[in-house]
Amino acid sequence: MGYFITFEGIEGCGKSTQIVRLAASLRQQGYTVRTTREPGGCPLADAMRRILLDPKSSELVPRAELLLYAAARAQHVAEVIRPALTADEIVLCDRYIDATVAYQGMGRGLDLALIHELNRLASDGVTPDLTLLLDMPVETGLDRARQRNGADNDAEGRFEAESFAFHQRIRDGYLQLAADEVRFCRIEAQGTIDEVEQRITAAVEDFLQAGQTP
Amino acid sequence: MGYFITFEGIEGCGKSTQIVRLAASLRQQGYTVRTTREPGGCPLADAMRRILLDPKSSELVPRAELLLYAAARAQHVAEVIRPALTADEIVLCDRYIDATVAYQGMGRGLDLALIHELNRLASDGVTPDLTLLLDMPVETGLDRARQRNGADNDAEGRFEAESFAFHQRIRDGYLQLAADEVRFCRIEAQGTIDEVEQRITAAVEDFLQAGQTP
Repeated sequence: MGYFITFEGIEGCGKSTQIVRLAASLRQQGYTVRTTREPGGCPLADAMRRILLDPKSSELVPRAELLLYAAARAQHVAEVIRPALTADEIVLCDRYIDATVAYQGMGRGLDLALIHELNRLASDGVTPDLTLLLDMPVETGLDRARQRNGADNDAEGRFEAESFAFHQRIRDGYLQLAADEVRFCRIEAQGTIDEVEQRITAAVEDFLQAGQTP
Repeated sequence: MGYFITFEGIEGCGKSTQIVRLAASLRQQGYTVRTTREPGGCPLADAMRRILLDPKSSELVPRAELLLYAAARAQHVAEVIRPALTADEIVLCDRYIDATVAYQGMGRGLDLALIHELNRLASDGVTPDLTLLLDMPVETGLDRARQRNGADNDAEGRFEAESFAFHQRIRDGYLQLAADEVRFCRIEAQGTIDEVEQRITAAVEDFLQAGQTP
């Protein structure tokens, strides 16, 4: 079995950039690496992602939204993540089950028991081996997300339009998860791209060395 | 609160025709009637229905398929069924939770415990008051479905392409549900449209009279 590493954090924390860098670095070391993201990650889950992220879907009721995230995740796990892990690859995934807890649970106040139940059903036992939380103040993240979206109008606009308090609850939620779950590693995400990359590289090297100890 | 009446049965059993007739008859008696169907029944659930019924979606894994049905149902319940019931309407729905048990559970052999769990999550407590099972031999239903689809190429073609044995398991599953649940009423669906309509009218009149008894 390979390793399943997920990236989490608020908007603008630099996940996408850092996943590209970590993938390149691991490939140079000889690992086979699969990068993917949620929601989406395969054509059928992308079709569901389009419904989830369409600004016209603002009438989606919370329970349907959670079930649709779970459906997309179940397809992604079965079609992409589990086969890659079975083929001994390292899977780097931009958001996973913790994003649902942080965004829908902590951010939007949806039923956490329902979220945990659907995470369990959707992930079907595929839990991250390591979760990197790229943590930074909400002000910094939102400034960066706004600059990016000005340049390149991204479909994630629906979430970025939410209030500052919403994003603060998400950051707090992620920090709580990181305190509760040993698989989490908090990465200080302020600083240059190179500085953050070095922190991530160090954390992943520690993890891989520990994982490969007999 | 209004009344929630669902129609179930194999392909070609005549549900759609009979729903139109029952709705007209109830409206003539002064009831406000809402007709709807699953999967779908509102624009967001219809978007999910298109993914479910697209022949290209044959790679949808069972767990994702069940979650997607549940998402569409949750939206339909919240946006259409519950508000109509709260407004004292009679809701006539073409397929509901029992279709998932019969088609995905009995027909395709998917995990019945998971199906019941997702039916509970999706329906959010909205259970039919009366379920009319339009029952007929599989041969008869499939002949009628094929004639209809020759005339009018329907998107349900994916299910109708399944084997005879599949549809037999569905009929048997429905009959088992009808034996287990008191809300079911089996309607003999062979005969002329008028004959079947008379049987349905009698069953619904019995139900409404019982329901209206103080």
